[in-house]
Amino acid sequence: MNLILLSGGSGKRLWPLSNNVRSKQFIQIFRRPDGSYESMVQRVYRQILSVDNSASVTVATSKTQVSALHNQLGENVGISVEPCRRDTFPAIVLASAYLADVKHIDPEEPVIVCPVDPYVEEDYFEALKKLSAQAARGESNLVLMGIQPTYPSEKYGYIIPENDGPTAGVRTFREKPTADAAREYIAEGALWNGGVFAYKLKYVLETAHRMMDFTDYYDLLERYREMPRISFDYAVVEKEEKIQVQRFAGQWKDLGTWNTLTEAMRDSVVGQGVMNDACSGVHIVNELDVPVLAMGLHDVVISASPEGILVSDKEQSSYIKPFVDRFEQQVMFAEKSWGSYRVMDVEPDSLTIKVTLGAGSRMNYHSHKNRDEVWVVISGRGRTVVDGMEQNVEPGDVVTMSAGCRHTVIAETELKLIEVQLGEDISVHDKQKFELE
Amino acid sequence: MNLILLSGGSGKRLWPLSNNVRSKQFIQIFRRPDGSYESMVQRVYRQILSVDNSASVTVATSKTQVSALHNQLGENVGISVEPCRRDTFPAIVLASAYLADVKHIDPEEPVIVCPVDPYVEEDYFEALKKLSAQAARGESNLVLMGIQPTYPSEKYGYIIPENDGPTAGVRTFREKPTADAAREYIAEGALWNGGVFAYKLKYVLETAHRMMDFTDYYDLLERYREMPRISFDYAVVEKEEKIQVQRFAGQWKDLGTWNTLTEAMRDSVVGQGVMNDACSGVHIVNELDVPVLAMGLHDVVISASPEGILVSDKEQSSYIKPFVDRFEQQVMFAEKSWGSYRVMDVEPDSLTIKVTLGAGSRMNYHSHKNRDEVWVVISGRGRTVVDGMEQNVEPGDVVTMSAGCRHTVIAETELKLIEVQLGEDISVHDKQKFELE
Repeated sequence: MNLILLSGGSGKRLWPLSNNVRSKQFIQIFRRPDGSYESMVQRVYRQILSVDNSASVTVATSKTQVSALHNQLGENVGISVEPCRRDTFPAIVLASAYLADVKHIDPEEPVIVCPVDPYVEEDYFEALKKLSAQAARGESNLVLMGIQPTYPSEKYGYIIPENDGPTAGVRTFREKPTADAAREYIAEGALWNGGVFAYKLKYVLETAHRMMDFTDYYDLLERYREMPRISFDYAVVEKEEKIQVQRFAGQWKDLGTWNTLTEAMRDSVVGQGVMNDACSGVHIVNELDVPVLAMGLHDVVISASPEGILVSDKEQSSYIKPFVDRFEQQVMFAEKSWGSYRVMDVEPDSLTIKVTLGAGSRMNYHSHKNRDEVWVVISGRGRTVVDGMEQNVEPGDVVTMSAGCRHTVIAETELKLIEVQLGEDISVHDKQKFELE
Repeated sequence: MNLILLSGGSGKRLWPLSNNVRSKQFIQIFRRPDGSYESMVQRVYRQILSVDNSASVTVATSKTQVSALHNQLGENVGISVEPCRRDTFPAIVLASAYLADVKHIDPEEPVIVCPVDPYVEEDYFEALKKLSAQAARGESNLVLMGIQPTYPSEKYGYIIPENDGPTAGVRTFREKPTADAAREYIAEGALWNGGVFAYKLKYVLETAHRMMDFTDYYDLLERYREMPRISFDYAVVEKEEKIQVQRFAGQWKDLGTWNTLTEAMRDSVVGQGVMNDACSGVHIVNELDVPVLAMGLHDVVISASPEGILVSDKEQSSYIKPFVDRFEQQVMFAEKSWGSYRVMDVEPDSLTIKVTLGAGSRMNYHSHKNRDEVWVVISGRGRTVVDGMEQNVEPGDVVTMSAGCRHTVIAETELKLIEVQLGEDISVHDKQKFELE
């Protein structure tokens, strides 16, 4: 099974757990069978491998998510990185070229494309297999998954099938409707278009070659900026006449708001949290090191992270975006290729962060023009390099770096340090990278 | 006017703003006339001085509050510090002896005793003046303030006056009653006993001398541990026959719970907080550097501090104490004589705190047995002394201190530093103080 998982967005609708650099699919909030927590992307990846442990999975995403994807899924997952944001058509073409030219998948093989974030069970992956098998059969160029609606949603486009069989031709498509129109469509037998479909790899590549001249994946990557900003639905799906839909009636939830997300949580409290008996329908998701106490609340979600604190009636939680957009805040935590950091203190001329490097990880060798830095190692072992001078470090060791000096840290074990940045113009953009001599 | 303000308690009922070291009376939550924020103790002190700017104010309190009192009220306020916790009788005797022997108040002068934490307006202080004048008159040994009840409270004792005149003899006292009994008392003309009373200074001193042999304040301070654990009500008020009560019908609120506290707040948001239009009756009190967003809540209080986050229905907020008692948490912020600190990070073998010293302040010269420390100065100027070696410091300077080494920092301007503590047994009790050579 060849899968392209579309991992997009820098959603703010799950603020404060999602922010400009952490998308909702990376929030570790769901229970694994062993009791530990996993994110949406980890859950879907685990589910895929449990259904087909030889599945070839490629995540189509932007640069900002690469570190988090490797941290959460390991190094084996394929990642097709858009050099810049276009739309779903270019992203899917690029990922398809990646499958052909990097993973060397046979152009006759079927490929499944699906978003990374629906909350589904095993039957969904069985349905994906059937979708893939149907694409392989070649009766049509494109096989869509049509999801049996559970309510007249205004959030999805609708697919009207030609008949009510398990696999049918597509009569027509409907844009996201009003609830009333949705009710009519559903009465006609319409299905949700969840952006899940399968095709033979060559189909998308040939379609792309007809629209744009490129030789292979590497050429496309170079010239990605020239690709049109157009969705796959608009560029391909709605124009294709040889198209079929397969019905799926299992669980398929879009966990895009706190309301829907908490419905899928097995625990009412994740992190430090206590509620009294007078609470009902309350969820606490707390990523801070201090407790949350909830008293006498009903149908409320409380979420706390280094970015802020949300306390919302669950229904109202779908309206948070404009409020969060107004918070002009620096990013307070982020995953990096080497680990993660959290902002602990912000002053006009200093910034103090806690840095955690994974065992064996290293920062880029880099310097800053406008700030001095001090590292205090608080746990673990490793080496620092400062202007070419190497030094072993352990807890209690202090490294001072003036502006302009090149530096890095290489973690032997997991290594934690407090970094104090000092200067008048502290910015994440003030960074020059170098090769380590 | 001579006033003794009783400042007790390490209330947890206003958690997370009050904790083991910060009592509720130090939370800066009320608006001053100039728009800035003040605490209960600052408010009452300001009100006293506005009514009588020559008032002599002495705060009777425990050691833990001395730094906060000086930080908030300045150095001029008199403080009578109990060497150990007894009860209100010993505390009032000690403070009375302080007035006589430290402040040299004439024993014939009247003294008013009142708790530091009721939320009152100017008319209360006018009533205190009358109470004091009545005590000076000498018709009785003790003049109580009787507060006109606004509801049948179960929280207060009741005073039954002999008649309904503005000043009356006391027929009898009633312990904290049930609501039903309270209703009956009120029908009989009973008044709340708010622990406010006046006497001639010599009265309490003579009463104390009859119960215990001591020469003066300094002797009493030495032998404070021998004082009986007994309340002033029980030891004095209920036994005194020459006793009167003066009626007070103005505002007198006990802001002991979040519910009552928020009623007295002029702003619904203190600190970084945003709420949408679907909120009603919501208060946000946020001492963190990140925003709180409230959506669709009703009659809820949200409070966040470095200790934790409370989200409570206002009615339910009176039940938080047992829950907070269960949080076994180290103190996450505190005021000290030299400024304040906030815990930023806790790891098994390290603790990182942010230290702010007021201009001209200095820590004790001290050492730790079981931990090394690193200071990184992030703002301000000052001097450090480490094992006798003095050094000027400014932002970016790093000072490392091994276990056992003596150290201090003296702030010239306001000075902020990041302190990283490193060791296996980090404890606030691991501290030896020394004289600076």
